[in-house]
Amino acid sequence: MKIEIWSDVACPWCYIGKRRFEAALAEFPHRDSVEIQWRSYQLDPSIPDHYDGTELDYLSKRKGMNPAQVSQMFEHVALQAKGEGLNYRFDDVVVANSFTAHRLIHLAAAHGKQDEAKELLLSGHFEHGKDIGNQEYLAKLGSDLGLPEAEIAELFSTDKYAEDVRGDIAEARMLGVTGVPFFVIDRKYGLSGAQPSEVFTQALTQAWQEANPLVAVGSPDAEACGPDGCAI
Amino acid sequence: MKIEIWSDVACPWCYIGKRRFEAALAEFPHRDSVEIQWRSYQLDPSIPDHYDGTELDYLSKRKGMNPAQVSQMFEHVALQAKGEGLNYRFDDVVVANSFTAHRLIHLAAAHGKQDEAKELLLSGHFEHGKDIGNQEYLAKLGSDLGLPEAEIAELFSTDKYAEDVRGDIAEARMLGVTGVPFFVIDRKYGLSGAQPSEVFTQALTQAWQEANPLVAVGSPDAEACGPDGCAI
Repeated sequence: MKIEIWSDVACPWCYIGKRRFEAALAEFPHRDSVEIQWRSYQLDPSIPDHYDGTELDYLSKRKGMNPAQVSQMFEHVALQAKGEGLNYRFDDVVVANSFTAHRLIHLAAAHGKQDEAKELLLSGHFEHGKDIGNQEYLAKLGSDLGLPEAEIAELFSTDKYAEDVRGDIAEARMLGVTGVPFFVIDRKYGLSGAQPSEVFTQALTQAWQEANPLVAVGSPDAEACGPDGCAI
Repeated sequence: MKIEIWSDVACPWCYIGKRRFEAALAEFPHRDSVEIQWRSYQLDPSIPDHYDGTELDYLSKRKGMNPAQVSQMFEHVALQAKGEGLNYRFDDVVVANSFTAHRLIHLAAAHGKQDEAKELLLSGHFEHGKDIGNQEYLAKLGSDLGLPEAEIAELFSTDKYAEDVRGDIAEARMLGVTGVPFFVIDRKYGLSGAQPSEVFTQALTQAWQEANPLVAVGSPDAEACGPDGCAI
């Protein structure tokens, strides 16, 4: 069973959703047969690479949101995050464009470290005031994950994996995704948002039952070749 | 929509099935959203690397099949192939183990040339009396496809992609595949054999309708972040 999760790094509900999904997955009996693929999404591709100000400044001054409402949103989200064991510090969040971070996640995926990269970036952004647009930070993170230094360097000297990031975003559009996190099971079921763990559990169970065994289509007698030769 | 096709090179119904599937796909309105992945399968892993004799000899002498029945099978299959525009020449078929050819298909896949490699190998084997176990032939074919020479050479000096081939075969076993060609749509529908094009069309249509849009699971109000900010 394959689960694709569209998500941004700079997305508070994505980290909370990740924890809720992980809680469901940890209890799922077939968890070893579940393949997770993180897919890139950018809530705000227009975020500058560098912005001198807090997330509150950015959202109120640049995006025209009501500061009081933004504060209220931070408080509410931080409380929900706390419920999942996450320590959000919105005052320390560094406003940054996540595009390069997404490219790093793709590089990590090529070395089987995608989930680890996603986890560290989300934690760095929301819990530790890290600048996810900063090359030095990203390089250190990649290095800590054991990614080849040459490939990390290549990330910053070329646009490697940029097409993959854009491809993910285009595919999200095709699937009708307008917000994240967005969970897709076997390209059949879609779950939008940080659903409660029980909802993920139900969806996993249902999708599993439907996916195994395969539904036979067409005639069972269509010509095929097997260990004893070919049909005549 | 993802379609995985388990198939062997040395499998007459696989090439016919490929043509029938391609005919259905060519008429399918969402064909640009269909991803095809050829998966390796070996009908007879015990075939020697070199065998001095015809396919008829091999099947009758080594596998103990009735020569008259084998001839009849060849005739029937060749006629079906002709119906799909394929010119099978069983008398010229070179008995060969397909393992290395499958490794070449995996290498081609890494360079976006999987379908081309599969097509050339099937045509070479059934229409042109090529030896799909011969390194020189495989190297030339890889070269014609524009695969990097160093990677082609690596194929013959190491066992690169052998694990991928074996992994495909193991996965087929897991899905209950006992003959090829075997078509799997979105890990949901399985079609065994060279089904008529209409059956492929029906399966494509049904799978597409079920997969798009995604079936929404869970509350539509679960917290998410979108272009206008995050839910509060």
